[in-house]
Amino acid sequence: MKLLEERILKDGQVFPGNILKVDSFLNHQIDVELLNKMGEEILRLYKDCGVNKILTIEASGIGIACIAAQFFNCPVLFAKKTKTKNIANSVYKTQVRSFTHGVEYDVIVSKDFIGENDKVLIVDDFLAEGNALLGLVDLCNQAGAEIAGCAIAIEKGFQQGRDRVEKKGVRVEALAIIESMTDKQVKFKNQ
Amino acid sequence: MKLLEERILKDGQVFPGNILKVDSFLNHQIDVELLNKMGEEILRLYKDCGVNKILTIEASGIGIACIAAQFFNCPVLFAKKTKTKNIANSVYKTQVRSFTHGVEYDVIVSKDFIGENDKVLIVDDFLAEGNALLGLVDLCNQAGAEIAGCAIAIEKGFQQGRDRVEKKGVRVEALAIIESMTDKQVKFKNQ
Repeated sequence: MKLLEERILKDGQVFPGNILKVDSFLNHQIDVELLNKMGEEILRLYKDCGVNKILTIEASGIGIACIAAQFFNCPVLFAKKTKTKNIANSVYKTQVRSFTHGVEYDVIVSKDFIGENDKVLIVDDFLAEGNALLGLVDLCNQAGAEIAGCAIAIEKGFQQGRDRVEKKGVRVEALAIIESMTDKQVKFKNQ
Repeated sequence: MKLLEERILKDGQVFPGNILKVDSFLNHQIDVELLNKMGEEILRLYKDCGVNKILTIEASGIGIACIAAQFFNCPVLFAKKTKTKNIANSVYKTQVRSFTHGVEYDVIVSKDFIGENDKVLIVDDFLAEGNALLGLVDLCNQAGAEIAGCAIAIEKGFQQGRDRVEKKGVRVEALAIIESMTDKQVKFKNQ
């Protein structure tokens, strides 16, 4: 998606350790107009898939998920990160390892809000090693929900995330795929 | 706001300790169509106030903030909760005590995204003791930003939050104000 790529080139910052900071428009300050264009594009990609629920994970996926959900006329469900040891029986639970923070945490969704009648679109801001996505896929599988696919804002194409998620049989779409990046240059994969 | 009150009566659940669960439509699963109506109402309340930025706090404020921001044509900034001890100099930081979880955490926003040229509308899902709002007000004050006011989805009118925030000279608007609640009955304040 040209608009997003241009915005990454203009306002993104690359830091050591393959960190791309896009906190001026995507995951701290949020450009809602840009999110709207992204929502439109996500609809174009998944419009004929019968999506009836968008699943994301707190916190930075929520904005994109809510704006995209307007195009699909469906609710959003956001998975919660928790360190609570005593989780109620009423949730599906999985473990996710954070690429950015190097910690592992439990991620839960209530059994009340996802089940075998759902066709789920998974939405998130970043795809790198794919840990968060694999967690969300696992939650859908536990619930018996069908997965239409994943829609990601920015994919780090030089990491293993896409392979790992596609190996689960899940479709992956990213609005901008970074082929390589240094502090001097960000290169995108042609789509 | 009638629509929100009716939804609370229909789908809200009251638990001991003055806990109102609205996770089927507001802070776990999100009814984006309802959020749209709420955004419209927030615009009605604050449309002539020159708002150029919406400030909220992760995670459950982000959805409402993003949808509301569409009506104001302005960006959202969401404050982040962190336990990191070494916070960069480039952030404003405050402490917030969580009513629900009984823990204290640091809340930060980057200095890059809020300053004295901003007129900020603070948006959140709940107002109870007001701790989160007071934290967000403090961040605005540190940044020298002007505060247009607060727009809250659900206020627990029997707790002290509104008084504490209004004493700081900040306007508070809530879309539904709960006067009293038991597991049998939720009563709203007439607005």
